[in-house]
Amino acid sequence: MPEYLPTAPYRGTRDFLPPEMSVRTQVFEHLYEVLERYGYLRYDGPVLEPAEIYERKSGQEIADQQLYTLTDRGGRRLALRPEMTPTAARMIAGNAGSLQFPVRWYSHPNCHRYERPQRGRVREHWQINADIFGSESPNCEIEMFELIHDLLRSVGATEDMFLVRANDRNLLSSALTDLVGVTAEQLPQVFALVDRWEKYDRTTLAEQAEGIGLADKQFEKLGDVLGAGTALLDELPAPVKDASNLVQVLSSEAAGLVRFDPMIVRGLAYYTSTVFEVFDVSPDNNRALFGGGRYGDLAGLFTSRQITGIGFGMGDVTLMDFLGTHELTPKPRSEVDVVVIPVAEELAGAARTVATRLRGARLRTSTPLELRKLGKELGKADKAGARAVVIVGREDWDSGQVTIRDLATGEQNQVPLDEAPAALAALLHD
Amino acid sequence: MPEYLPTAPYRGTRDFLPPEMSVRTQVFEHLYEVLERYGYLRYDGPVLEPAEIYERKSGQEIADQQLYTLTDRGGRRLALRPEMTPTAARMIAGNAGSLQFPVRWYSHPNCHRYERPQRGRVREHWQINADIFGSESPNCEIEMFELIHDLLRSVGATEDMFLVRANDRNLLSSALTDLVGVTAEQLPQVFALVDRWEKYDRTTLAEQAEGIGLADKQFEKLGDVLGAGTALLDELPAPVKDASNLVQVLSSEAAGLVRFDPMIVRGLAYYTSTVFEVFDVSPDNNRALFGGGRYGDLAGLFTSRQITGIGFGMGDVTLMDFLGTHELTPKPRSEVDVVVIPVAEELAGAARTVATRLRGARLRTSTPLELRKLGKELGKADKAGARAVVIVGREDWDSGQVTIRDLATGEQNQVPLDEAPAALAALLHD
Repeated sequence: MPEYLPTAPYRGTRDFLPPEMSVRTQVFEHLYEVLERYGYLRYDGPVLEPAEIYERKSGQEIADQQLYTLTDRGGRRLALRPEMTPTAARMIAGNAGSLQFPVRWYSHPNCHRYERPQRGRVREHWQINADIFGSESPNCEIEMFELIHDLLRSVGATEDMFLVRANDRNLLSSALTDLVGVTAEQLPQVFALVDRWEKYDRTTLAEQAEGIGLADKQFEKLGDVLGAGTALLDELPAPVKDASNLVQVLSSEAAGLVRFDPMIVRGLAYYTSTVFEVFDVSPDNNRALFGGGRYGDLAGLFTSRQITGIGFGMGDVTLMDFLGTHELTPKPRSEVDVVVIPVAEELAGAARTVATRLRGARLRTSTPLELRKLGKELGKADKAGARAVVIVGREDWDSGQVTIRDLATGEQNQVPLDEAPAALAALLHD
Repeated sequence: MPEYLPTAPYRGTRDFLPPEMSVRTQVFEHLYEVLERYGYLRYDGPVLEPAEIYERKSGQEIADQQLYTLTDRGGRRLALRPEMTPTAARMIAGNAGSLQFPVRWYSHPNCHRYERPQRGRVREHWQINADIFGSESPNCEIEMFELIHDLLRSVGATEDMFLVRANDRNLLSSALTDLVGVTAEQLPQVFALVDRWEKYDRTTLAEQAEGIGLADKQFEKLGDVLGAGTALLDELPAPVKDASNLVQVLSSEAAGLVRFDPMIVRGLAYYTSTVFEVFDVSPDNNRALFGGGRYGDLAGLFTSRQITGIGFGMGDVTLMDFLGTHELTPKPRSEVDVVVIPVAEELAGAARTVATRLRGARLRTSTPLELRKLGKELGKADKAGARAVVIVGREDWDSGQVTIRDLATGEQNQVPLDEAPAALAALLHD
């Protein structure tokens, strides 16, 4: 007996059979459409990038533990991109001279991270990236929040299903320094602690705070600050608030799109002020769906030109979990609209002629490749989700006619070939 | 001075800036549409696959020289897929029990091969794969040829621009054995020689033939066989022809879609009978665009079940070269349809309200993120390809009006906000 190789995909990656792919395609087509309506332009870049750009920019966790790397035959150290922002930064830096800033860009790359597969986490995921490059205006923040709401609505979500929580890292720094007494040296560690705040219990957090060197009182105050919500803003100095885009958003007509939350910091190293996360509010799936933020110097690895921006990455796995939780997952599309069935193999050519006509009228049309009895073919057409079949018989065909059978009602009608496309289109748009 | 990293993409891979991406998207959307009209169902699979499946199936050249491999932290040897067929085979084998054969599938993966970059060859390319799995009928061959013609027509090609050349490896084997006197041991090497036939000059080919052990007379006869075209069929035994799907195609109503050509063999190891290549007939780009063939046992690595099929892979690079040669490359789409410009920053919120209304009417609409003088914004909107702008002025807005400016004519009209979407839609569909 020969040994067969396993048919499962590599651990943490996914096969998309046609029904699953149909669902994915439908969901992302909605998202593309919204992005295009906002004037975002799609771009794309390679899966392989120099490993260095992630090691220097994406933060320790990605570089040390999550990066898939390889060395090519020319000795270049490469990585499978774990995220799209460094690629975008490289492209923006390389084309800064010819681009008219600000620009709105989006992409839909597959990204690889070596993670332990679990709910919401896979090793290859498909991520929508949407960014504005080259503007510091709070109009960008507002647009990002509007866009997020429209993206989620486009896949069927209503406002009560999700919540956009936003913070400004500068506001949090000010609060930590001025109100909690965190030192400049402790700040990065305390940020990391805040990022874990909702994942651990109080005791664990207290131990970690102690490890950083925070006194009990400081730990208590930290908890107050993180739980204060909008009230925290009253305690912060005016210059810090005046410099915050998020504070301006909160006093604009767009304030209702977002909730200020001092607990949001995000893990990625390059965010410099605004940060946000979109949460599923369902108790069955109470988790962050995706997030993003503003970076003060996106392309510093590639150019001396300071390019600011704001954006987010929206992965397919958490989005699909969200849709599943709220029963919003679309059904796979039917495989075809119409099947053209010849009653005998010698009419296969005639059936192809009919199919060509129907395709010309934008009807998704197939013909049997291996002809079986009519009853079997009807059953197969029905299973494929066809709305109707066209039966091509010898005598009919010789007189320029075909028979249309409505698969919903079983009704059959003989029509001239010329009239078949219109008759079928009418059935389909019934 | 800090050292900056290069902004060029990794050698042999490509960045797609928005204008290039727009071209790529338009071309492939046409192809998707044709495939869906034929009832092909889209699927997808991971970039990373076990390296073994290529080493055992894709042929020596890919395995030895072209494969990007890596070892993950769990010690698994992986490869970036160089082609999609083994992934499809794995998925088909893993789901054979629940699939209703024959199935029509298509995909659009990015594939990696370590090649020397040159015209038509890159290291990461995007390839349309279309296959029929589970049928041995010549109806499959006919459909493949029809599909290829429709795909190329959908991107603007006419029948005089390309040629589908097809062969059957069994016909060629018979000709080589019976007419040229090639031995069974020599056959694989002679196939490889035939595959190089159009790439080398006669002297080089003669030397290589000698190396295989062919006598001068045999080499001459080989040249006659390969150049014989359809006339070769008269010299082949009837049982070999009767067993050939391609011969059946050549006597069907679809014969005009394809030219029988004994010189076509294709490199990939898994083709077992029909093989075909699509050629650009322009003297400026006289080369194979893409090709495919029939495999008798697709999934033998994964299952004892014999799954036959036929299909092709159509890469984006050669396709784009073809379109460029024939001046068929589409223009990048305009960035937006409409730009809504507030005359002062305090009207930014009003402009967003207008933009939301227009997006609701499916108009691609942007608003300035950083407001500059009206003249500058008009120029920018024009550059982005907008058909019109909506100007939001203080007094207009207070009375529920906006001003629509036709960017083609410069004509301006004040309209009530409610009427703006319809007025702009009318302008756009002018």
